[in-house]
Amino acid sequence: MSSEIRRKRAGGRAGHAERAGVKTIDQMPWRIPVNPDRPIEPMGPEGVEAIHKGAMRILSEIGIRFFNDEALAIFKQAGCKVEGDTVRMDEDFVMEMVGRAPSEFTITPRNPARALPMGGKNILFGNVSSPPNYWDLERGKVSGFMEGFRDFIKLTQYFNCIHFAGGYPVEPIDVHPSIRHLDCLYEKLTLTDKVCHAYALGKERVEDGMEMVRIAGGLSEEAFRARPHMYTNINSVSPLKHDFPMIDGALRLARNGQAVVVTPFTLAGAMAPVTMSGAVTLSIAEALAAIVLLQYVAPGAPVGIGTFTSNVDMKSGAPAFGTPEYMRATQMTGQMARFYKLPLRSSGVCAANVPDGQAMWETCNSLWAAMQSGTNMVYHAAGWLEGGLIASPEKFVMDCEVLQMMQRYMEPEVWATGPDEIAIDTIAEVGSEGHYFGCQHTQDRYTTAFYQPIASDWRNYEAWQLDGSVWTAERAHRIFKAIIAEFEAPPMENAVREELKAFVERRKLEGGAPTDF
Amino acid sequence: MSSEIRRKRAGGRAGHAERAGVKTIDQMPWRIPVNPDRPIEPMGPEGVEAIHKGAMRILSEIGIRFFNDEALAIFKQAGCKVEGDTVRMDEDFVMEMVGRAPSEFTITPRNPARALPMGGKNILFGNVSSPPNYWDLERGKVSGFMEGFRDFIKLTQYFNCIHFAGGYPVEPIDVHPSIRHLDCLYEKLTLTDKVCHAYALGKERVEDGMEMVRIAGGLSEEAFRARPHMYTNINSVSPLKHDFPMIDGALRLARNGQAVVVTPFTLAGAMAPVTMSGAVTLSIAEALAAIVLLQYVAPGAPVGIGTFTSNVDMKSGAPAFGTPEYMRATQMTGQMARFYKLPLRSSGVCAANVPDGQAMWETCNSLWAAMQSGTNMVYHAAGWLEGGLIASPEKFVMDCEVLQMMQRYMEPEVWATGPDEIAIDTIAEVGSEGHYFGCQHTQDRYTTAFYQPIASDWRNYEAWQLDGSVWTAERAHRIFKAIIAEFEAPPMENAVREELKAFVERRKLEGGAPTDF
Repeated sequence: MSSEIRRKRAGGRAGHAERAGVKTIDQMPWRIPVNPDRPIEPMGPEGVEAIHKGAMRILSEIGIRFFNDEALAIFKQAGCKVEGDTVRMDEDFVMEMVGRAPSEFTITPRNPARALPMGGKNILFGNVSSPPNYWDLERGKVSGFMEGFRDFIKLTQYFNCIHFAGGYPVEPIDVHPSIRHLDCLYEKLTLTDKVCHAYALGKERVEDGMEMVRIAGGLSEEAFRARPHMYTNINSVSPLKHDFPMIDGALRLARNGQAVVVTPFTLAGAMAPVTMSGAVTLSIAEALAAIVLLQYVAPGAPVGIGTFTSNVDMKSGAPAFGTPEYMRATQMTGQMARFYKLPLRSSGVCAANVPDGQAMWETCNSLWAAMQSGTNMVYHAAGWLEGGLIASPEKFVMDCEVLQMMQRYMEPEVWATGPDEIAIDTIAEVGSEGHYFGCQHTQDRYTTAFYQPIASDWRNYEAWQLDGSVWTAERAHRIFKAIIAEFEAPPMENAVREELKAFVERRKLEGGAPTDF
Repeated sequence: MSSEIRRKRAGGRAGHAERAGVKTIDQMPWRIPVNPDRPIEPMGPEGVEAIHKGAMRILSEIGIRFFNDEALAIFKQAGCKVEGDTVRMDEDFVMEMVGRAPSEFTITPRNPARALPMGGKNILFGNVSSPPNYWDLERGKVSGFMEGFRDFIKLTQYFNCIHFAGGYPVEPIDVHPSIRHLDCLYEKLTLTDKVCHAYALGKERVEDGMEMVRIAGGLSEEAFRARPHMYTNINSVSPLKHDFPMIDGALRLARNGQAVVVTPFTLAGAMAPVTMSGAVTLSIAEALAAIVLLQYVAPGAPVGIGTFTSNVDMKSGAPAFGTPEYMRATQMTGQMARFYKLPLRSSGVCAANVPDGQAMWETCNSLWAAMQSGTNMVYHAAGWLEGGLIASPEKFVMDCEVLQMMQRYMEPEVWATGPDEIAIDTIAEVGSEGHYFGCQHTQDRYTTAFYQPIASDWRNYEAWQLDGSVWTAERAHRIFKAIIAEFEAPPMENAVREELKAFVERRKLEGGAPTDF
């Protein structure tokens, strides 16, 4: 364990830093990363056209089922063909509605300094969302619990490379489902000041979520509705279906000016065609169907299109992640998102069960696919294991190292080519016998010239061995513990906290949300 | 341990496969990967121009030192300014000589089916080269030894995703340096039929290397010289120097029509400016100086330009690999290689000491940088640890999983968008209630639709746990052992093998190579 992450003995963070000259982690500052690279585009224009035309045929000929009477009535009113719960819509209508969606918008959380511009060349990263289980090196795999939930929220707030708090980083099953959303959102809104997600799982949860975000932001109802302060993510039920609660929640958020990301889960070979372009086509059709609905009822509503297209293991049927097929599907969906001028969401995902080599090559593949596809919002970017069934704090810390490196990779000074960077005078000065450690050109720059790691050990083998031969997952575990021990919540006015508390208590007394949906 | 990698009990590979329905590893077939993606180019044209002009100023004003009298005499004859051992050359001369180099060429080893097209959009991968130490899960870190060397050569031959055998995958220090090149090259030429590297470390080693490759290929001296059958890699001694033996060896290979890759090791902040463009500029100047020499004496000689520009850890001075700065430097060098129309070599590298999470995120970063930069030849693509001081068979197997995924990622069928792939009829057929496992469209494609892993475990946590909770490095260790147990050398005619053996014995009797250089 390096000296940087040794636990303080006394004197608080400042005293410790003064004594040791270091902080717990010397992480990168908060910033909004701008991706300067051209996206990688495997398809030519004819491929984009083929997927678009395919999606339009699905929407106009095959149709999408909506298990939501309100949605069916809206589609009928809009002139779509509605037969039973199947909705068919033609290309002109789809493109008119999609054209209403903004290509960029900003989500402003309770701390306006954490506002997130969604779209364009921005790429934002969020924590792992929704695993039912928790895994760490001490406990092994256990069902999600509230203390673990809190730890992940603290990590989410702590790391500057994490821009938003997604769904529950782990599902705390020790809290009753009827009031879980109240406790969880209270923790999220008090332990972080970053953009929050609320689940679109029934009227009560969505309305409670909006009200709590409004209270936390100290906003009037009018000010809340005037612009996005939160978002939700909805999934279709592939193939070809949207279910009641998510569409209901999405409609409520859209009508209140809040952001909705629509992410079909089209697993090629299972819920979607075995061919990647077939799976992407189905995904696009399902996503557009919901976006059309939202744009019809709330023109200009902030929406994003999500991709969760991957493939199964054809031996076992298990989902695989970070595969070559996953990467290309993500890039292809990026091409489609630009075609429809919609912000894109993708993910940092893996199938590995523990934070080992496989976990990192799969996660790196999916994160690079996010970078290469022009993704604007990267879900599950830190902490995900076992295809989303496990959240792991060690994996969270390890992923944050990767995310920091990617964010440094996007900083233009790395490849600057001015005369001071080409440095011919310095090359002449150092000549063929000297070295560059001591020269002025290096001295002027060395503290900021290179990425500084948090969980990586760059010492040689012998130094690493003398220090206990600690593998990455164990180093990450120690960093996780140190962060939790030192965590300080962001400031919140007492009156606001009391109002939030009172709201949660009142809603608990009212019974929270129904759990029979 | 999955059934695929369980050791056979009897009956050889075929018998085993018949009984179990599987092979040791169901790896991808040999092929020459073509990289279809546009390279990522961080610099605009003005950046390329700035580095070019900087490199030209280094060559014309500051000069490069050559510790090789023959090279100095050649430069003098060519009209360059030679003062002591410092050579200065002007841009016109440099560009004229560089213009002589072919942008693509083919290296043909003893098995012509393994011929490697260098340049263009091809990207070829080679094994780890030159670590002095060996590490595996059983032994820990030990000095390199011949049995370990052989195991790595077997892995190099076994994996179809590995295209060439680089330098010694581990330095066998249990063989005397005077005869080591003879034993090592004998093992390489008999245990593999892939393109081989020979070290440019003095006249005897280079001449022996060429003779052994000629014998192994059953070639006349004329046929050997007529086209490339092998290659070497030389490094400059940064900053600004080329030493005697590597230049001597490079000249010998170039005059015999064999390929030479010139790779400066410009570690920003140590042997090169702390700024990445400064380090790349220095690297380009040093590489071009040697390429100019080779093109003057052997116009049209097959050469490549290598990059090994990374940064140091500014806390310790230790080299770091797979960093954001490393990635951008690799991409920048790719832009320069295309400017000079030279094939590009880069590497798969990391600073990690063991095959864990850090090893894989650093290696993935460097391998993705190779892909993004338009690299043609990826050195150290499998098996490298501790900044090149350790070769590890577990890491080799793990890297081969990553390389296979990258090679699958480059296959155009992944993103094909014909009517059969968009599959609207299948989407209509399956509808909203069915699933895609059983439909004809899936049945027709499922055996080849998706990448099949070798070391990844895609089972769920409980299945993985029941099977012993084996982490990736341990799975890779078992695969390594299974491959070695089953290894079969490629065929070689007895007469050729005898001639090789006789050559090695004769040269050993003659004392091999001097060891005092």
